[in-house]
Amino acid sequence: MDSTKMLTVDAKPYPFAFSPRHTALLVIDMQRDFLLPNGFGEIQAGSLEAVQASIAPTKRLLDTFRQANLPIFHTREGHKPNLSDCPSNKLIRQKGFPGNTRDLKVIGDKGEMGRLLIRGEIGHNFVDELEAFPGEVIVDKPGRGAFFNTILMDRLKAKAITHLVICGVTTECCFDTTIREANDRGFECCAIEDATAGYNAEFKCSVLDMIHWSDGLFGFVASLQALLNTLNSFTRSPALVGDKPSAQTPATFDGDLSILSLQKAYRNGIPPVAMIEVVYERIEKYKEVDPSVWIHLETKASALEQARKLSSNWPDCSRLPPLFGVPFSVKDSFDIAGLPTTTACPPLVRVPSKSASAYDLLLKQGAIFIGKTNLDQMATGLTGCRSPFGIPRSVFHYEYISGGSSSGSCVSVGAGLVTFSLGTDTAGSARLPAGFNGVVGYKPTRGLISAQGVTPACLSLDCVAIIAGNVSDARTVWDLCTKYDEEDPYAKTTAPIQRHINSTGTRAKIFRFGIPPLEALAICNPVYRRKFDESVEFLHTMGGISRPIDWSPFEKAGQLLYEGSFVSERLASLPDGWLEKNREHLHPVIQEILENVITRQSTAIQAYRDLQAKALYTRQVEKIFAYDASGIDVLVVPTAPTHWTVEEVLADPITTNSVLGEFSHFGNVLDLCAVAIPAGTCPVLELHGKSDVEGVLPFSVTFLGGSRMDGETLEIAQRFEQHISQTTP
Amino acid sequence: MDSTKMLTVDAKPYPFAFSPRHTALLVIDMQRDFLLPNGFGEIQAGSLEAVQASIAPTKRLLDTFRQANLPIFHTREGHKPNLSDCPSNKLIRQKGFPGNTRDLKVIGDKGEMGRLLIRGEIGHNFVDELEAFPGEVIVDKPGRGAFFNTILMDRLKAKAITHLVICGVTTECCFDTTIREANDRGFECCAIEDATAGYNAEFKCSVLDMIHWSDGLFGFVASLQALLNTLNSFTRSPALVGDKPSAQTPATFDGDLSILSLQKAYRNGIPPVAMIEVVYERIEKYKEVDPSVWIHLETKASALEQARKLSSNWPDCSRLPPLFGVPFSVKDSFDIAGLPTTTACPPLVRVPSKSASAYDLLLKQGAIFIGKTNLDQMATGLTGCRSPFGIPRSVFHYEYISGGSSSGSCVSVGAGLVTFSLGTDTAGSARLPAGFNGVVGYKPTRGLISAQGVTPACLSLDCVAIIAGNVSDARTVWDLCTKYDEEDPYAKTTAPIQRHINSTGTRAKIFRFGIPPLEALAICNPVYRRKFDESVEFLHTMGGISRPIDWSPFEKAGQLLYEGSFVSERLASLPDGWLEKNREHLHPVIQEILENVITRQSTAIQAYRDLQAKALYTRQVEKIFAYDASGIDVLVVPTAPTHWTVEEVLADPITTNSVLGEFSHFGNVLDLCAVAIPAGTCPVLELHGKSDVEGVLPFSVTFLGGSRMDGETLEIAQRFEQHISQTTP
Repeated sequence: MDSTKMLTVDAKPYPFAFSPRHTALLVIDMQRDFLLPNGFGEIQAGSLEAVQASIAPTKRLLDTFRQANLPIFHTREGHKPNLSDCPSNKLIRQKGFPGNTRDLKVIGDKGEMGRLLIRGEIGHNFVDELEAFPGEVIVDKPGRGAFFNTILMDRLKAKAITHLVICGVTTECCFDTTIREANDRGFECCAIEDATAGYNAEFKCSVLDMIHWSDGLFGFVASLQALLNTLNSFTRSPALVGDKPSAQTPATFDGDLSILSLQKAYRNGIPPVAMIEVVYERIEKYKEVDPSVWIHLETKASALEQARKLSSNWPDCSRLPPLFGVPFSVKDSFDIAGLPTTTACPPLVRVPSKSASAYDLLLKQGAIFIGKTNLDQMATGLTGCRSPFGIPRSVFHYEYISGGSSSGSCVSVGAGLVTFSLGTDTAGSARLPAGFNGVVGYKPTRGLISAQGVTPACLSLDCVAIIAGNVSDARTVWDLCTKYDEEDPYAKTTAPIQRHINSTGTRAKIFRFGIPPLEALAICNPVYRRKFDESVEFLHTMGGISRPIDWSPFEKAGQLLYEGSFVSERLASLPDGWLEKNREHLHPVIQEILENVITRQSTAIQAYRDLQAKALYTRQVEKIFAYDASGIDVLVVPTAPTHWTVEEVLADPITTNSVLGEFSHFGNVLDLCAVAIPAGTCPVLELHGKSDVEGVLPFSVTFLGGSRMDGETLEIAQRFEQHISQTTP
Repeated sequence: MDSTKMLTVDAKPYPFAFSPRHTALLVIDMQRDFLLPNGFGEIQAGSLEAVQASIAPTKRLLDTFRQANLPIFHTREGHKPNLSDCPSNKLIRQKGFPGNTRDLKVIGDKGEMGRLLIRGEIGHNFVDELEAFPGEVIVDKPGRGAFFNTILMDRLKAKAITHLVICGVTTECCFDTTIREANDRGFECCAIEDATAGYNAEFKCSVLDMIHWSDGLFGFVASLQALLNTLNSFTRSPALVGDKPSAQTPATFDGDLSILSLQKAYRNGIPPVAMIEVVYERIEKYKEVDPSVWIHLETKASALEQARKLSSNWPDCSRLPPLFGVPFSVKDSFDIAGLPTTTACPPLVRVPSKSASAYDLLLKQGAIFIGKTNLDQMATGLTGCRSPFGIPRSVFHYEYISGGSSSGSCVSVGAGLVTFSLGTDTAGSARLPAGFNGVVGYKPTRGLISAQGVTPACLSLDCVAIIAGNVSDARTVWDLCTKYDEEDPYAKTTAPIQRHINSTGTRAKIFRFGIPPLEALAICNPVYRRKFDESVEFLHTMGGISRPIDWSPFEKAGQLLYEGSFVSERLASLPDGWLEKNREHLHPVIQEILENVITRQSTAIQAYRDLQAKALYTRQVEKIFAYDASGIDVLVVPTAPTHWTVEEVLADPITTNSVLGEFSHFGNVLDLCAVAIPAGTCPVLELHGKSDVEGVLPFSVTFLGGSRMDGETLEIAQRFEQHISQTTP
């Protein structure tokens, strides 16, 4: 799936080939309840000798995957204390045995390690030797198969996993069931024969034979040693030096804020306070370049205090949470308990007592909060020129707009002040400014990240977004703050259809993409037009196949946003009469926009018509993104049609703004996911024909994918990013 | 799960107990590609001797299940011609074998029976001996497991199946994988050891041992003969006489229009023309009682012609489609190609060239169309008194309203003129009139039955509904016309979470229910109030556990419908100015309602507020229906608070209507499913205190379930129906 070298392991029926970047270890049910005396397994099935023998080999696998810095998933079978997720057949099978004279305990009964197979009990957790480390994914499952009603499929896709190395207990039950499920979903599985065991030796033998029978009916079977040999040689290879801890790395902080680089630094013993020193030096310096980035900045003392606390909470450098010591900012429409949320709008300022859900999740993963960033007032605007806290500028050139509404967020990342920022994106508010600052702006499918604690702009279309220096960082942050939140009425659960993945061969490499028609691209300035053509060329050379698409549903959906009634929703979260009362406290452009909403007097009838149209276009676009030979995997568009100067925007704030949204407005209307990524630069000279202006400006393209196709869309974007970095000087 | 006697089959590890009513046969992949020479199986795995030996026993199982009139599911593994549903690992496994010298064909390659494992090819279909009969469910599956991305779980729940008898090929692959999936989902499975086979005898032995090991790790294993003995004695038992063909049944039509009874009659050789004669005699007679039922009636000649065509299309009485010769009507808001659709509204009349999707599906199953029924104009109203085609009356009493808007539909069923009718239910339009005519009104979860070809009332809330004489008939019709339709923008695909079922023991019998609080019930007339209390008592005696619920989201959601902006959507499907132009052609009450909508001038801002409130209440109610010990399975309400006379409604058409919707309005707003069923009668005398009025009026309760919990909700309603019919004289 990418240029990373393929490794092979001697296996049955033939060598198992995998790319480490797309491979995870899946450890099945190494729980006390199955492995220790008086647990559920011993009560049900007797002898523990065989299953206990799988602990040491599993430990070696874990050690090796951790050394290689590859993802690890642990499953745990078990049920809620009230057993509501335990089907009756599973519960009463043993009790139902007629003439049963043994006093068999069943699920939920009290055992010596707590209630049997109940979440939260001692027996339900992993044996001490195989404890999950921070950042490793724990998959709680109610069934034998690890894909049934669990987060596994979504999380594997989030991490771009296509190949699974599988071990654990018991071979005949959860191990085998999970391999069968994984195989149907397109994963290539390699079972490690000496790191799995069951309560019945004959079954184990038979299950392993069935897996590799008939040229690999369900996958591959390899020995532990074969796998370790391959992975160890990979871990020692020079290719991995950038990704893994190394004794040679000097213990000074190199200033690289990317997550992988920070993880490496911290694993090597560099303390987060070193990072804080560098970050605050940069922040202070950047204030001279642009004083409009922050609305609230944590004091350096407080940031250092956060960093010290982290160090003392996580003293073992080899077991740090994935965002340990990663500095981030949030757009000032996110609540943080005790700090004012301004939304850059004085009449809206309030001090919440509870933080936004996404923020809380990041802190739990060890991230360090640096400050709250400037934004277009009420998160309304794509220019960055609509804030009472000043106009942030593009990090590339002071005369050019930063874009908005997540203006400060994108500048804070683009200027290297933080690793990432949480923004929002209703109509393009993360994609556009990311594009204008040469960073990645990723708007997941709406409802995957909780919007609880985020001031609404247009509630039913708002989307939490992530701004980061590269796709990998954005993806990591997304993976860690994606969690179903029943307090968010617009939150989405898992996908109704678990689309299979393509793990190997040509189909894992090619992808189908669509682009806007020439007429739609005509809105772009000529340089952007040329840069976009170059990007399309890139896509072709990296295995993309372009397909004609019907542009009209995208176009019409985009028009609904500001030309229809949808903009009225921006007033729906405010009480009647709010505008009249607060008019003079608003930024003049926002005041004009909201007054236009009132003046336009869109009726409820029009709103329902627009919503019916939205439903229709969404269905039409669903078909365009259908998982079919006639569909596309991604739509690729220029992130913006042009890059205005601040002067141009101030001269005509509403028209310039509207032009900017041409390729972003439809994203949330159609329930798509989208990631804007840098695609080269163009000389300012060329862009605006001003002979007196030096420097370059960034060009950006956006990849859009179907609802919940985030993993797949990010993967294509990431390959593009890699490809362009290798081909561009 | 009900009073039907449990049967037992000698099995390992102990006898398999099942109720025939909840048991289906699941035949795995008995396709030519796996069983015949030159098919995919022979190419991949060699010898066919063992798998072919499973054909005869499977045939005996099929014969026996058909004799017993129990549901049968056939799975077929295969892929779309473009292979878009075939993951790459499955496709290239064999080709990927290094040093592979055999010329192995893989999926999609041309074989002697067409392309291997491709849908539509000769090799993909079942072997001749095991052809699927009409009405048996064919499950096309892309994977080995029959539950992965298929309709199986939804269709099993629709038929209330909890126990599966499983046979087919191959034991080691699709058979085993499917049993493991079924077990996780709560189904009790019994594998028939001599009706399954694989390409490897040792594997078969091992798989069967694993299934029943450890007190039934995945289920039960029985011999063919043991199962046949049990089922044959059931088929011969007197208990089944009502359900199965019998040589003793006289060959004259008894006039019973229930689906089971008609199926029995037709299997016994009675021709559908006999049914038509009876039906038209009743229709003619009923015209004298109530001339307002029909807007369009097929001529008797044309109905007879339909019946004759059916007989000639399906000459074999033992293989009839499930709705063969079942007479039905549709509300006149459904399109039927070539007939005018009136929606009881002269300005809207048009003659469509394409029929509604649901209608087409019914015809395919052999149903006979009788006519289009009267309705409240534009499907707007709950009284049945708002049509230019007259006022249909309750079949119980001429002075009392039929209810609406599906007035004619409910009367046509209640008067025994047809077996069932298709109606619609936006705010209660099927539930209410069903209640007032003593029949079942079932409104599935929105989007399960396609609304294509149905004139919209309030498009985003409209729901196709089924009116029938009993829950079983409504359920059968629903099962047969539920099909995802990508042309319906509001259509739902399968459920994101496949909730497990409880197949056995106490948990299969108990259910948790909530009712409205006393204050909410105060709107009911005293007789209804008492009848409702009696119904709640019934629920307790049949195993229901009542739980307190928060009523406010239901109440507030109901208010959104007419007190908020939602009613504006009724004008959204019509062009601007339509009302002004057509005012004088409208029924005066409809005219008033629509004018109120215009006068009220609801704004788009209000519409978005209402929609945000809808999202919030929906989430709150989702939690109330959560699959948790603290949640409820069903909400039980009186279908209507009272039964008005036509006179009362005409005196105050809008207030009386609004009272009627108290317990129905919130149904579609909250995305619930709902079934109204008869719950006894009350003397007219008692209800209205008029000493001069004779007869009784029906009382009805409605069971509401969570989104897509139709199968579960219908099952509880069906048990209530059975219980009440056994306890009420």
